[in-house]
Amino acid sequence: MSKRIVIALGGNALGKNLSEQMTAVRQTAKAIADLVEDGHEVVLSHGNGPQVGMIQNAFAAYERAEPKAERMPLSVCVAMSQGYIGYDLQNALREELRNRGIQKDVATVLTQVEVSPDDPAFYHPSKPIGGFMTEEEAKQLAAEKGFTVAEDAGRGWRQVVASPKPAAIVELGAVRALARAGQVVIACGGGGIPVKAEGNHLKGVPAVIDKDFASALLAKSLDADVLIILTAVEKVAIRYGKPDAEWLSHMNAAEARRYIAEGQFAPGSMLPKVEAALDFAESGAGRYALITLLEKARDGIDGKTGTVVEG
Amino acid sequence: MSKRIVIALGGNALGKNLSEQMTAVRQTAKAIADLVEDGHEVVLSHGNGPQVGMIQNAFAAYERAEPKAERMPLSVCVAMSQGYIGYDLQNALREELRNRGIQKDVATVLTQVEVSPDDPAFYHPSKPIGGFMTEEEAKQLAAEKGFTVAEDAGRGWRQVVASPKPAAIVELGAVRALARAGQVVIACGGGGIPVKAEGNHLKGVPAVIDKDFASALLAKSLDADVLIILTAVEKVAIRYGKPDAEWLSHMNAAEARRYIAEGQFAPGSMLPKVEAALDFAESGAGRYALITLLEKARDGIDGKTGTVVEG
Repeated sequence: MSKRIVIALGGNALGKNLSEQMTAVRQTAKAIADLVEDGHEVVLSHGNGPQVGMIQNAFAAYERAEPKAERMPLSVCVAMSQGYIGYDLQNALREELRNRGIQKDVATVLTQVEVSPDDPAFYHPSKPIGGFMTEEEAKQLAAEKGFTVAEDAGRGWRQVVASPKPAAIVELGAVRALARAGQVVIACGGGGIPVKAEGNHLKGVPAVIDKDFASALLAKSLDADVLIILTAVEKVAIRYGKPDAEWLSHMNAAEARRYIAEGQFAPGSMLPKVEAALDFAESGAGRYALITLLEKARDGIDGKTGTVVEG
Repeated sequence: MSKRIVIALGGNALGKNLSEQMTAVRQTAKAIADLVEDGHEVVLSHGNGPQVGMIQNAFAAYERAEPKAERMPLSVCVAMSQGYIGYDLQNALREELRNRGIQKDVATVLTQVEVSPDDPAFYHPSKPIGGFMTEEEAKQLAAEKGFTVAEDAGRGWRQVVASPKPAAIVELGAVRALARAGQVVIACGGGGIPVKAEGNHLKGVPAVIDKDFASALLAKSLDADVLIILTAVEKVAIRYGKPDAEWLSHMNAAEARRYIAEGQFAPGSMLPKVEAALDFAESGAGRYALITLLEKARDGIDGKTGTVVEG
């Protein structure tokens, strides 16, 4: 039975540089093409952590070399990363589909995602971005440019930005029109270009929208049947890393909420994935989320593996 | 009467940096919104000369600062520039439309344009890109990286790349689907990401596709009524810059061809615009092209000014 599926792909799965990305998108394309070949309607979103980091590093180097160069805002770097990743991803998927005799088009929609300026996340910037610095460099940057900086898990200091919840997908109509026209659509890259509304004006904000939350909103807005969150493990575990760890094939909303309350899932890692899965699964009858490995996506949709989260 | 209009906007009109672009897109938005308000169906393409130059400069600085950094191919820089420009342009247009009470959506489609690997332009790279160098630097770059370099009009040395003709717009189906859904579409930014087909694979090529030729192909492919090429003069002139210069309100195909043969139009400047206009005007009954200033676009469509090129 044909399903409408939104797939959230991790930015780390796309590699840290151009050559890694070229290899990674080929593997990604095979897994996505499996679902298209099975007759499902697919909309793809993706992370952009390493990619937007590279773009920021390039503009930081430019700024150091050229005193006249402007600081490139994070929102603009996200827009560039959607072009950078979308180009490779749409091409790899187009090629894989054609290799299988499927003449389906693939299109990337430059996507802005609106956030609320009142989101409490703006009071607690916590999402590390960009390169590592010494404590001295970090504090100098904070003093000179007003950035928030923080020590990152013993690895050094980094800039941190807010990670507000997505409130609305500005280009939703375009995504919907393309999906209706039978296209495979790539949208909400990097969680979307973060903007806030000031009257009719949309203003870029220095924030990172979690791509799993953005994907859940995209899936809800498109009335999707399934949200697939691809990650580095085949199933979600409780007591992860312990001798009595348990891999879960299924969670209902009550179980998911209990595990979250117990602190079973690591913040910034599995926690937002389970929260996004739950958010989508609870949003409408018959909707469910699947968390699994890229290469297990087809088996997961066929009910053979992965962790299913139901509302 | 409602017309389907493809508009080609110059990259220089968008400014050289982020703040110039933010100002420029507001002016652009007003002129485009006039046409949308008059009931026309609008698809917008744009150049990216200064913008892709900035992105290349940033990655060149990164490469100098970080020996591990990869060289960013021109095609990828074009993809990033479509994100960079599309973001500001779609926002400014969306805002201007909403300020006028028009709830129309605006979307940017990441667009690849296929070129023929046999295009004779590949044997004569002539399009200068990126920053200026001394002769010594240029020759060193040519020796080390195999780039073609050339002296640019007494201003210094630059890298030059091929400027092949556009053969096909890969994401045409997406542009058409969005236009049919009533969206204002931004496509073919910077002339499109230049690719060549190798079987089912599309491979980026180090080339720049002239945005006016890409726009003419887009207009033909969409069965547009009018192609508007926006430039720095209100009308095209023959004997330009001479005391007996004549501003033209109209050219038929025979006249356009004669003026081109006489060398009336500067290569790399007005010549490709007149050639692209002629190419579109001759491609079907009732089609015509208009060359004029951004702020005269509405008057031009109303028959009051600009140079009309008919087939």
